[in-house]
Amino acid sequence: MPAPARVLILAALLPALAFAQEPAKNPYRSAKEIIDAAPASAWRNLDPANALYMQLPNGRVVIELAPGFAPNHVANIKALAQGGFWDGTSIYRSQDNFVVQFGDADSDDPAKARHFPANAKDKLTAEFTRAGKGVAFDPLPDKDGWAPQVGFADGFPVARDPASGKMWMTHCYGIVGAGRGNDPDSSTGAELYVVIGQAPRALDRNLTLVGRVVKGMELLSAIPRGPDPMGFYEKPEERTPIVSIKLASDVPESERTPLQLLRTDTQAFRDATEARRNRVDDFYKNPAGHIDLCNVPLPTRDPTAAGGK
Amino acid sequence: MPAPARVLILAALLPALAFAQEPAKNPYRSAKEIIDAAPASAWRNLDPANALYMQLPNGRVVIELAPGFAPNHVANIKALAQGGFWDGTSIYRSQDNFVVQFGDADSDDPAKARHFPANAKDKLTAEFTRAGKGVAFDPLPDKDGWAPQVGFADGFPVARDPASGKMWMTHCYGIVGAGRGNDPDSSTGAELYVVIGQAPRALDRNLTLVGRVVKGMELLSAIPRGPDPMGFYEKPEERTPIVSIKLASDVPESERTPLQLLRTDTQAFRDATEARRNRVDDFYKNPAGHIDLCNVPLPTRDPTAAGGK
Repeated sequence: MPAPARVLILAALLPALAFAQEPAKNPYRSAKEIIDAAPASAWRNLDPANALYMQLPNGRVVIELAPGFAPNHVANIKALAQGGFWDGTSIYRSQDNFVVQFGDADSDDPAKARHFPANAKDKLTAEFTRAGKGVAFDPLPDKDGWAPQVGFADGFPVARDPASGKMWMTHCYGIVGAGRGNDPDSSTGAELYVVIGQAPRALDRNLTLVGRVVKGMELLSAIPRGPDPMGFYEKPEERTPIVSIKLASDVPESERTPLQLLRTDTQAFRDATEARRNRVDDFYKNPAGHIDLCNVPLPTRDPTAAGGK
Repeated sequence: MPAPARVLILAALLPALAFAQEPAKNPYRSAKEIIDAAPASAWRNLDPANALYMQLPNGRVVIELAPGFAPNHVANIKALAQGGFWDGTSIYRSQDNFVVQFGDADSDDPAKARHFPANAKDKLTAEFTRAGKGVAFDPLPDKDGWAPQVGFADGFPVARDPASGKMWMTHCYGIVGAGRGNDPDSSTGAELYVVIGQAPRALDRNLTLVGRVVKGMELLSAIPRGPDPMGFYEKPEERTPIVSIKLASDVPESERTPLQLLRTDTQAFRDATEARRNRVDDFYKNPAGHIDLCNVPLPTRDPTAAGGK
């Protein structure tokens, strides 16, 4: 008889048994159990003044912006959203194991390109890194090949270089960046991309990262790939229409998506990460004793649903 | 004016200029240039006796099997394919940033479960690791947090532990594994999964890996995610039908997919990887000096197309 399909590799993500098979100092708790038991104070509300709602034909994508990392790009993105720049544009690129990209597909054609709202800037200086001094940093215990240190700051996955004092956001799954040309100062935030594959961290410190998708990632990651080697579509009708992109605070409160994020500077987050570093349950036979920065999920919840507090 | 959409972050993947901006010992060649210039001897034909054709309604997925890593599972998979086990089954799970899984969705229901072909086994011992002794290993120069050494063997991404002498395939994007229950010896190869997100390497040495997708990955990765937290579909009609899975050598030669793979034990592969570790072109401002094992693409080509030799 074949093994039951529904239990196969499922246990990998199921809550572990309260009592581990091997002796442990404390009973093992799975990441899910730790997160479910986290106190209300471990959660923060998504700030609507720093969130975008991207309305697609089949649902809403919620993006948390990162003004601490890219203040000028984030300010421009807010101006673009408030000016309706993206309403009626599209997701015009989907490259497998890399990115989806959206904005004005005609931006390279001066005759067709959309005009920026009056208060949006058409030229910005790159914001590849920020000064790390004074920024609270919660390090991961694990070594990373791409950077001297990795961890979390402002709730985002980041890298840090003690020698230069610089900090930067990392290209993990779901991170949102500003496309540019060869000129490092050529991104405006009007053309944005989202990582949908293995973290392309060679791009770290080469592009300005502006935030991350906190809900609706599956609406972006499952978009059919474009046939072009870089994922562009041949025909405009293959693109995914963007109904609108609005700043969440401009949407009536009753229409907002209730969302909380687990604070990354809490014991619950650290314990959940440790539970993922060393899984002790009936499924895992060889706990890794390690986690990659981009394998650490950033938990969210709907505070109005059961389980929210 | 907005920056042109089509050039944004494109340069990241374009062939680099032949002359780098900064002085270099040798003119920088991009990975693509190196691969395009690789001699015919650097390529190998996909062995049809070790390849599966998975026919989906919208195209063919080609999987290279890894008998060196999982000889018993691969033998069983061949028996299952030759017995038509998967014909008319489905992809019944698509979990965002994790895996798609396919096989018999009814395998947990004894009344409905498909029977195995007579020569397929319903019980196999786990093949999580293999003896590394005598297996040619091409190491990456970069450190890895998950394993003492990483690199390539038999054309697959692998890890290696000099202390134990063990080698194992790693859960990179596109790798194919055999689902199991809590019993390590409960996989048969009938229920398979493919990694579609950030490499879940905590699963390394916890599951038997049997091969990798070498063509058609975009047919799997863009499948709409299931609503269940683990990506299962609610309704059978949401599943993606599998027309058939055949061993390539059982398909008439005229209907086979011509495919060559770049050998990982060649100078061309090493040079291309080095070119990705340190990108020197008009786009990159901060070359990483590093690459993660799962960021190294395994180049393929159609030998009958222009560019094939």
